[in-house]
Amino acid sequence: MTAWAGWLAEQRAAREAAGLQRGLRPRQAGDETIDLASNDYLGLSNHPDVCRAATDAVLTWGTGAGASRLVTGTTTLHTDLERELSAFIGQEAGLACSTGYHANLSAVTALTDRNSLIVSDEHVHASLIDAARLSKAAVTVTAHNDIAAVRDALADAGGRRAVVLTESVFSVLGDAAPLPDLVDVCTAAGALLVVDEAHGLGVVGEDGCGAVRAGGLAAHPNVVVTATLSKSLGAMGGAVLGSAELVDHLVNRARPFIFDTGLAPAPTAAALAALRLLRERRIGPARIHRRGAELAERLGVPCSAGAVLSVPMPSPQAALAAQAHALDAGVRVGCFRPPSVPDGVSRLRITTHIGLDDERWAHALDVLTTAVQRCRT
Amino acid sequence: MTAWAGWLAEQRAAREAAGLQRGLRPRQAGDETIDLASNDYLGLSNHPDVCRAATDAVLTWGTGAGASRLVTGTTTLHTDLERELSAFIGQEAGLACSTGYHANLSAVTALTDRNSLIVSDEHVHASLIDAARLSKAAVTVTAHNDIAAVRDALADAGGRRAVVLTESVFSVLGDAAPLPDLVDVCTAAGALLVVDEAHGLGVVGEDGCGAVRAGGLAAHPNVVVTATLSKSLGAMGGAVLGSAELVDHLVNRARPFIFDTGLAPAPTAAALAALRLLRERRIGPARIHRRGAELAERLGVPCSAGAVLSVPMPSPQAALAAQAHALDAGVRVGCFRPPSVPDGVSRLRITTHIGLDDERWAHALDVLTTAVQRCRT
Repeated sequence: MTAWAGWLAEQRAAREAAGLQRGLRPRQAGDETIDLASNDYLGLSNHPDVCRAATDAVLTWGTGAGASRLVTGTTTLHTDLERELSAFIGQEAGLACSTGYHANLSAVTALTDRNSLIVSDEHVHASLIDAARLSKAAVTVTAHNDIAAVRDALADAGGRRAVVLTESVFSVLGDAAPLPDLVDVCTAAGALLVVDEAHGLGVVGEDGCGAVRAGGLAAHPNVVVTATLSKSLGAMGGAVLGSAELVDHLVNRARPFIFDTGLAPAPTAAALAALRLLRERRIGPARIHRRGAELAERLGVPCSAGAVLSVPMPSPQAALAAQAHALDAGVRVGCFRPPSVPDGVSRLRITTHIGLDDERWAHALDVLTTAVQRCRT
Repeated sequence: MTAWAGWLAEQRAAREAAGLQRGLRPRQAGDETIDLASNDYLGLSNHPDVCRAATDAVLTWGTGAGASRLVTGTTTLHTDLERELSAFIGQEAGLACSTGYHANLSAVTALTDRNSLIVSDEHVHASLIDAARLSKAAVTVTAHNDIAAVRDALADAGGRRAVVLTESVFSVLGDAAPLPDLVDVCTAAGALLVVDEAHGLGVVGEDGCGAVRAGGLAAHPNVVVTATLSKSLGAMGGAVLGSAELVDHLVNRARPFIFDTGLAPAPTAAALAALRLLRERRIGPARIHRRGAELAERLGVPCSAGAVLSVPMPSPQAALAAQAHALDAGVRVGCFRPPSVPDGVSRLRITTHIGLDDERWAHALDVLTTAVQRCRT
């Protein structure tokens, strides 16, 4: 055995001893399990209009973009999506990336340098954390949704350009950021607020436009939005939305954008078709919130700001047991344990979907109520 | 104007003054330009079998994976691709990622920590450079393809676990790494060699298996391979290929893999179909090399190790003029100028494709010969 094989084996043994070893469990085609773990909140990944847009795009454009966006990987599909998505979110311009991770890395690294300060909420997504690490900026982590802490951190910026990182709806706990207050604090300090709408787009606002536009912050000069195309839009990819000048800057400076093959035609077209369903109000988030409220009441937890319901459990074992019980009864939910939870509390993460018919939803409610009650005690 | 808008405008003015301002130019559907800038070397992005696999996948699986791979975003499509791609490349196991950038970030960050040394060839792709930056390891950059420099750097590792980064075929210059010598040096020092086959897969080896297996280095315990699905496979995405223990380690530790929605069904299926065409020898790289040799002879430059022909030009202006001349005559090629070139030399980057029929290829040869001759003097 080489030293490397030995090191990998040691690492695995340590994970196993700590109960942290995880593995991939592939879904089969035609799997009938009710999936309340995915982020396909609006069920658009299987919507006929969205699927048709994707298959049409393959026939028109082929299966890949063929090159990076600046070389020859930009199609009119990309620019259509960027124009319509930015308008929907309330920004002047947009840039589609291959993943939300690429979008966050692109925005944060291109907007900061050695003379910058990044102020990051302690609950932000791994992609924003990695973006801050990859940047050359100094980083201050602030307590979750703590406006005073952000104000204090910005007061210490000492002339550095400052960027504040948050999410509109947080990924695991499902709570919302106090966006208007954050924007006020950032504006007063001349800082830029990057808002990740990964779990806000399609879910927050009457038409699903996200928390920034719904909160009256469209085109605010101190706000940049990032988003994913892989959650409520049912596709794959990410985007950065802001001023035209900002997007031009990213095209020229964001290495994770520049040195990546363009988003493939199928997911680009799928995201665009999904967006049009939202914009034309043919689908919307109202039912997500009704179902979320119903589920929260049954499980005795607070309602969520978005489609993610966080259900704290007394221990990692209890969370795992509830997840297994639900799966045995045909309902898949997420289970988050330390170190994957920002606050150290093991929990179920249940997403409310509108892709399920009422009968299957009612069944899911019963299964989850039983599973959680049984494993909480 | 806010301070941020002012900063963005300043940055743009500086780029414009330096002649470095770039913009996106979208392709139209049905564009008849001959594209020798893309990396779709085998023309598989429009192959009927590949397109059919992608559209079938949309109808079976939907337009998105719906969640991260560890949650519920793994399908049997992913595991089929991982099994067949790793076998083709000569490795035990594989892990598909959303982009090649994600694959390189995943491999490098999960294999290194504060106690590691990364030794990186000065010409490696931006994604490997960013991966090294994101890691917590010390980084030594060595002269291009300089085996003695790698040996010296490894001799200075002082007990740290060392990872050496290279590409099988380099992206801009199109030259090859001396893989057998690098493997010997790494093995002697107990280091791991990460070989990016982005431009080797589908191009090097009789069947396009890439330089690692073609070079007799399949399943070597000191080699890890990364690859893209977006170049010769005509789709989108990336992969890490190595031992089953290595892949298990990445599933548990690679943040850019863990915190990303799974690769969408359409590109996953497209890459798998493209791979099967190669494996079944229904398509192969021989014609790429014949065409590459023909083009190299006409332009008076050395042959390429892969499908990328690098044509040095006397100045950035001459390179731009040659590119513009070719485009006017209906042939698109890449143009790389400082600071996007590893050696400071402006050049055309021309990729040889087998998607073109003989008549269009002959036309492209004539156009490029004229454009280069006219602009070289």
